[in-house]
Amino acid sequence: MHKGLERVSYLLGTWRGEGKGRYPTIDDFAYGEEVKFWHDGRPLLFYAQRTWNLETDGPMHSETGFWRPQRDGSIEIVLAHTFGCVEIQEGTVEGNRIGTKSKGVVSTSSAKDVVALARHYSVDGDTLSYELEMQFDDNELQNHLSGTLTRQS
Amino acid sequence: MHKGLERVSYLLGTWRGEGKGRYPTIDDFAYGEEVKFWHDGRPLLFYAQRTWNLETDGPMHSETGFWRPQRDGSIEIVLAHTFGCVEIQEGTVEGNRIGTKSKGVVSTSSAKDVVALARHYSVDGDTLSYELEMQFDDNELQNHLSGTLTRQS
Repeated sequence: MHKGLERVSYLLGTWRGEGKGRYPTIDDFAYGEEVKFWHDGRPLLFYAQRTWNLETDGPMHSETGFWRPQRDGSIEIVLAHTFGCVEIQEGTVEGNRIGTKSKGVVSTSSAKDVVALARHYSVDGDTLSYELEMQFDDNELQNHLSGTLTRQS
Repeated sequence: MHKGLERVSYLLGTWRGEGKGRYPTIDDFAYGEEVKFWHDGRPLLFYAQRTWNLETDGPMHSETGFWRPQRDGSIEIVLAHTFGCVEIQEGTVEGNRIGTKSKGVVSTSSAKDVVALARHYSVDGDTLSYELEMQFDDNELQNHLSGTLTRQS
């Protein structure tokens, strides 16, 4: 493993669990979720996430991209989303906690305009917890998703 | 397969080949490349690409994201790049040819600022050819990469 990855090596593996979503514009919802982090020797993590409907097992959301820990203790995340959005997150790694805010979000012409996103991850052994905040349309940045995943491998 | 994917189903599979790169600011270079397109029943393609050094086999670039064909014959592509950039491409599908230009490109604080990108893909049977144009810094939008890949499966 590249030395530059050691600080976030606790993310590596396949994680599975469930999450819950909420937002003023929609009904509350729940979902199954799988997250994978892996590397190829470079100082960055490959990331792929997918969620599914807990009743039908049908796919809901997917996002994929790269996590780039920096030498100064900061981290950059570059992501693409199935619903037609890309985002750049920047923030910090503090031990087992990672917190980032969007530097830029761009949506496709057919997609809804997400204004900003913030992400909070923490790992405790084989448990990964996260919160995602979203600013959408005229709504303030606020909690949209939260989930708890268990490391499978 | 979702009906919305039929128009671009010729992309599905794993492709391998080689490409060449050029730009006024750097020496010419060559690379090995693998591209994978797959789907999960939704009307979008999952996309993962990686390139490697032909002499050392070491990883060079990777990009990943989603291709979203639209009902009106247009297509949207959302991508994240290992070097710290995300892009939204929009354009058209005309038979076996896909051409797009960037609607938005955002780079992380540590990455070089790409101003714009354009992509041209064509598939002839089991051969995929592409050209990528890049506008970087003060240089005009111009050809940066071209490659030819063969379908493996």
